Amino acid sequence: VEAGATNCQFRLAARPEGLPGRDCWEMTEEAPREPADGEALVKVLQLSLDPAMRGWMNDVPSYVPPVGIGEVMRAIGVGQVVESKHERLAEGDFVTGLFGIQEYATLPGDALTPIDADLAPLATYLNVLGVPGMTAYFGLLDIGKPQPGETVVVSGAAGAVGATVGQIAKLKGCRAVGIAGGPEKCQMLVEDFGFDAAIDYKNDELLPALREKCPERVNVYFDNVGGEVLDAVLARLARKARIVICGAVSQYNESSMRGPSNYMALLVRRARMEGFVVFDYADRYAEAAREMGGWMAEGKLKGSEDIVAGIETFPDTLLKLFRGENTGKLILEVASA
Amino acid sequence: VEAGATNCQFRLAARPEGLPGRDCWEMTEEAPREPADGEALVKVLQLSLDPAMRGWMNDVPSYVPPVGIGEVMRAIGVGQVVESKHERLAEGDFVTGLFGIQEYATLPGDALTPIDADLAPLATYLNVLGVPGMTAYFGLLDIGKPQPGETVVVSGAAGAVGATVGQIAKLKGCRAVGIAGGPEKCQMLVEDFGFDAAIDYKNDELLPALREKCPERVNVYFDNVGGEVLDAVLARLARKARIVICGAVSQYNESSMRGPSNYMALLVRRARMEGFVVFDYADRYAEAAREMGGWMAEGKLKGSEDIVAGIETFPDTLLKLFRGENTGKLILEVASA
Repeated sequence: VEAGATNCQFRLAARPEGLPGRDCWEMTEEAPREPADGEALVKVLQLSLDPAMRGWMNDVPSYVPPVGIGEVMRAIGVGQVVESKHERLAEGDFVTGLFGIQEYATLPGDALTPIDADLAPLATYLNVLGVPGMTAYFGLLDIGKPQPGETVVVSGAAGAVGATVGQIAKLKGCRAVGIAGGPEKCQMLVEDFGFDAAIDYKNDELLPALREKCPERVNVYFDNVGGEVLDAVLARLARKARIVICGAVSQYNESSMRGPSNYMALLVRRARMEGFVVFDYADRYAEAAREMGGWMAEGKLKGSEDIVAGIETFPDTLLKLFRGENTGKLILEVASA
Repeated sequence: VEAGATNCQFRLAARPEGLPGRDCWEMTEEAPREPADGEALVKVLQLSLDPAMRGWMNDVPSYVPPVGIGEVMRAIGVGQVVESKHERLAEGDFVTGLFGIQEYATLPGDALTPIDADLAPLATYLNVLGVPGMTAYFGLLDIGKPQPGETVVVSGAAGAVGATVGQIAKLKGCRAVGIAGGPEKCQMLVEDFGFDAAIDYKNDELLPALREKCPERVNVYFDNVGGEVLDAVLARLARKARIVICGAVSQYNESSMRGPSNYMALLVRRARMEGFVVFDYADRYAEAAREMGGWMAEGKLKGSEDIVAGIETFPDTLLKLFRGENTGKLILEVASA
C-alpha cells in the first residue's frame, strides 16, 4: 500500500431506534494495518449493503453477534490484495470476504475467498454468485422445494435475493409472482426477469391481487418482508404450502415486531413456515455457484445491481435500502479496480 | 326407540363475539328421525366438547365448513344403535360418529364407526383412542418428529391432547415439559402423567421457567394455545426445532388473532412451524389405535376425563373449556349405556 494511505472507516457509534440515522455512525481514519504472517491486506473495491445489517446493529444475539459500539460496521465486499503474507494469495488477486465498511481490510488469508474477475463482473460476486444468490438458491430449493407447475411468490422481489428467487422458480418450471413496491419495479420483474406476474404492494390491494395473480393459490412463499404482506399471502396458501422465512425488512426498523396474525392458516392449509441461515450451506456454495454460473452463461439468469459510488455516502445509501429505493442489489463502490 | 321419545338438541342461534354465551344457543325438541335405508338411529351417550368448536361457530371457511345458524351444533360422540337399517349395524352396537349436541342422531351407517365397549370405557373413545389421541399421536410423531433425548414442550398440557402428547414423548425417550394453568394441573402432569416438569403459566414467569425446565432448549413444541406462550417458547427454541401448530385456544375468543411476534426465531434457530389437521390421517387411525391401545394395556399411557352429566348443561360446560377449568378431556354425558 502506498505510503501515507489512510483507511476511512464507518464505525457504529450508537444503536438505532427505527431507521439508522447519521448519528449512528462515526467516520474514522487510520493507517491501514500491515498484515501479520498468514494475513493479507486488501484494498476494498465494492461493499454489499444488506437488510440483515439492520439486525446486526441491535444488541440482540442472533445467528451472528451484534456489531459492538465503536466497531467497524460489518459488511461483505470484493477487493484486491495489495500485500500478502499468506502463501495462497498474491498481490493483485481479487478476493471476497467480510471486510467491513472501510477502504482497507487486513484479514487472515483463510478468511478470504479468491474470485475470478474475468469470469463475471466484480459486483456479480456480491449478487447472484454471492450471498444473495446463495440465499435465493438454498432458501428456495432446499426449504421451499418448488415442484414444476407450482406457484412461487416472492416478496422484496426487485431486491437481490428476490429477483434471483423468481428466476430460479421459472427455471424449475414454476409460475413466479413477485411482490415489489412501485410500477417501475413491477415492470422490471416481468420484462427483465421473466416473472409471470407482479404485484405492487404500494398501489395494489394485496388480497384481490393475490387472487388474480395466483389463481391456483400459493405453493411456495419466499418471504423477505414480513408484516402485512406475509399475512396476505398466508390467506392465499395452497394446501401443503411452504413459507420460507428469509427476512422481515418491513419490521426491522419498528420498535416491536408484528407477528403474522394469520398464522393459523398453517393449520387450515397443512402448511409450514421455516427459517434458514445461508451460512449453514457454506460447504455447498461451490455447487450452487457452478449451477448458477451455468445459467448466467446461457443467459437464463441475470443479476441487477444498483451501484452507488463513494464510501462517504454509506449512511445515506444504507437508508435507500430500508426505504425500498434501490433496484437490484445495492452496492457501495469504494474504489475502482 | 320408545314411542313418544323426544330428541333434545342444541342449535346455533347466533354467532358469538368472544366467549360463546347462552344467547348463542337455542334448545329445541323434536321426535327422533326414523332411519332410512342404509341409516341407523343412535342414542347418544357421551359427547366430546373441544376447543375446535369455537372455530366452527365463526362464519369463516376452515378445514370444515362453519356450523350454520339454526343447525344442531357439531360434536363427536359415542352412542348405541337403537334402530338400524344398515347391514353392518345391529341394535345395541356401540358406535362413534359426528352426532351433534343432541340426544338422538340419525346418520348413514357408513358414517358410524363401531367401537368395543368391553376393551375400554366409552369415554376412552373420545379421548386417547379418539380424535384427541389421534391428534396427539400424528401431530407429535409425524409433524414434530421427536428424537430420543430431545426436549418436547406441550401447552394445554392438562387437556386431552396435551396429556397424551407428553406421555407419548416420554415413551419415545424425550424430556417432556408441560405448560398448564394452576398448581393442581401442574402437579397432575408430573405425578399422574409422568412429565419431567411442568410450568404454571398463570403463576410462573414463562421465560425464566422455560430456561430452568428446558436447560437444553426446546426441540419440539406442540402448541395448543398460541398467544404469549407461543412467543415465549419461540424465544427458547433449539436449533432445527419443530413447532407443531395444533390450536390457539388463547386466541379463539379474541376479536383479532395475535400473531407470534417472535416468529423470526424460526430464522435464527433454523426452525419450522407446521400445521396439520388430524382428519387427514383417517386411514392410519387404526394403526395408531393399535399402538396406543397396547400402551394403555401395559399401563404406559392413560387418559383423564372430566365428565359432566346432563345435555342441558351444554352451554355452561362448554365455557369450562375456554376458561381452562376442565382437567382432562371434557365430556358431556347425555345418557348412560
